[in-house]
Amino acid sequence: MKQTTEGYRRIEPTTLMAPLPVVMVSCRDPESGRANIVTAAWSGIVNTHPPMLSLSLKPERYSYGIIRASGEMVVNLVDRRHARACDFCGVRSGRDVDKFQTLGLETVDVEGCSVAPGIAGMPVHLGCSVEEIRPLGSHDLILAQIRSVSVREDLFDGDGSMHLERAGLICYSHGLYQQVGDVLGFFGYSVARPEVYRERMQPFQGERDRKASGRGRK
Amino acid sequence: MKQTTEGYRRIEPTTLMAPLPVVMVSCRDPESGRANIVTAAWSGIVNTHPPMLSLSLKPERYSYGIIRASGEMVVNLVDRRHARACDFCGVRSGRDVDKFQTLGLETVDVEGCSVAPGIAGMPVHLGCSVEEIRPLGSHDLILAQIRSVSVREDLFDGDGSMHLERAGLICYSHGLYQQVGDVLGFFGYSVARPEVYRERMQPFQGERDRKASGRGRK
Repeated sequence: MKQTTEGYRRIEPTTLMAPLPVVMVSCRDPESGRANIVTAAWSGIVNTHPPMLSLSLKPERYSYGIIRASGEMVVNLVDRRHARACDFCGVRSGRDVDKFQTLGLETVDVEGCSVAPGIAGMPVHLGCSVEEIRPLGSHDLILAQIRSVSVREDLFDGDGSMHLERAGLICYSHGLYQQVGDVLGFFGYSVARPEVYRERMQPFQGERDRKASGRGRK
Repeated sequence: MKQTTEGYRRIEPTTLMAPLPVVMVSCRDPESGRANIVTAAWSGIVNTHPPMLSLSLKPERYSYGIIRASGEMVVNLVDRRHARACDFCGVRSGRDVDKFQTLGLETVDVEGCSVAPGIAGMPVHLGCSVEEIRPLGSHDLILAQIRSVSVREDLFDGDGSMHLERAGLICYSHGLYQQVGDVLGFFGYSVARPEVYRERMQPFQGERDRKASGRGRK
C-alpha cells in the first residue's frame, strides 16, 4: 500500500464528514419543567422501518441528562432564519441561560412527546422517543424512534405536495453553517428517461431562473 | 396534549431529517478482488474521540456483505461533478454492473485500509474500519472508526489552510440532491465580537460578491 496518493494530502484522522445536518434539539426536564435546546451536527437517519435517527451528545451537556431522564426529545430542522439561534444553542449552556427566553423562542406541543416541546416556527418537528444510549468515547450515541412528524403549513402546495426545498434549510460543514442551495437532481435522476427528467426538474429550473434574475426570495 | 399544533400539518412518522450527507462508500470483496460503490444518505458522525461515523445499509445491498466480510470501507465525500455518479451508485446494484468501469471511475489506495479503495478525484477520502454492526429493522447500523483522512490538494491554500467550502459538496434532502451554498456563519459566530465576525466572514462575502457579479466558478 502506498503511503500517499498523488493529488491528496493526508491530515490527522478527524470527523471530516460533510455536509452534516445541523438540528436544534428541544427537551424538557420532567422535574423542574424547564425547557432547553441543544444544537447538534452529530446526528442522522439510521433506519427507515421503523423510522429512527441518531444523535450523539457529550454526556456533560445539560440537555443530555434531560433527554436521558425524560426519554424524549424533539428534533427541529433549521432554516436560515434560525441560523444564529442554532449557533447560539450550540455554544451556550442551558445551565447558564434560558435559551427559549433569551432567543425569544416559544415552545409548541409535539405529538408523540408528553414532555419535550418543539420550537415554534421551525420548518419540521420530529417527535422522538429514546430507544438506546451507547457510550462511544467523547460522545454517547442516542438512538431514537421518530414517533411523529409535523411540517409547517407553508411548505405544502395547494395540492398537498410537500416542498421541503422551499424551507431554506441550512447544513454544517467543517465548522461553517451553509445554505442548502440549488436542486441538482432527484433520487433516480441518473437513470430517468429524458422526459421524466425534464418534467421533474422543471420546477427547480424555474426557481433558479427567478434567483438569477433577482426576483427570488432571499 | 393537543392533537394538532396551529400552523403545522402532521404526516405519517417517517425519516424526514434534512439535509443529510450523501456519500459514496467504496469497498472491495477480499475474495474476488472486485471493487464496488454504494451511495448512502443514512450516515453521519457519531463520535469525536476517537473519530467515528455511522452508515446504515440494508443487509441485502451488495456492498453490505463486502463491508462486513472485509471490515473496511472508504467514505468518499461527493461534489457536484459526481452528483450523477452518486445517484447511479444508489439505484444500481454491484451484482449487475461494475460501477467503477461503467462510470469511468478509478480506484486509489487509501491509508488505513488494506483492501477497500477510495474513488479517485473525490474531495475527501475517509478510510474506515468497522467496529460494530447493529440490526435496527430495515437497516443495519454500521459503526466505524475513521482511520485516515485524505483531502484533495486543491482544497488547501498556499498557507496550508483547508477550504472545504470550495469543494462544491452536495447534500440530500427529502429525495433531492442539492448544492451546498452560501456560507452563513462559522461555529460560534452568534457570540463572536463584531471585529472577529467581520474578519472571519470576509472571505465568504467576497465569494458571494464574485458569484453575484457572474465572475465566480459555477
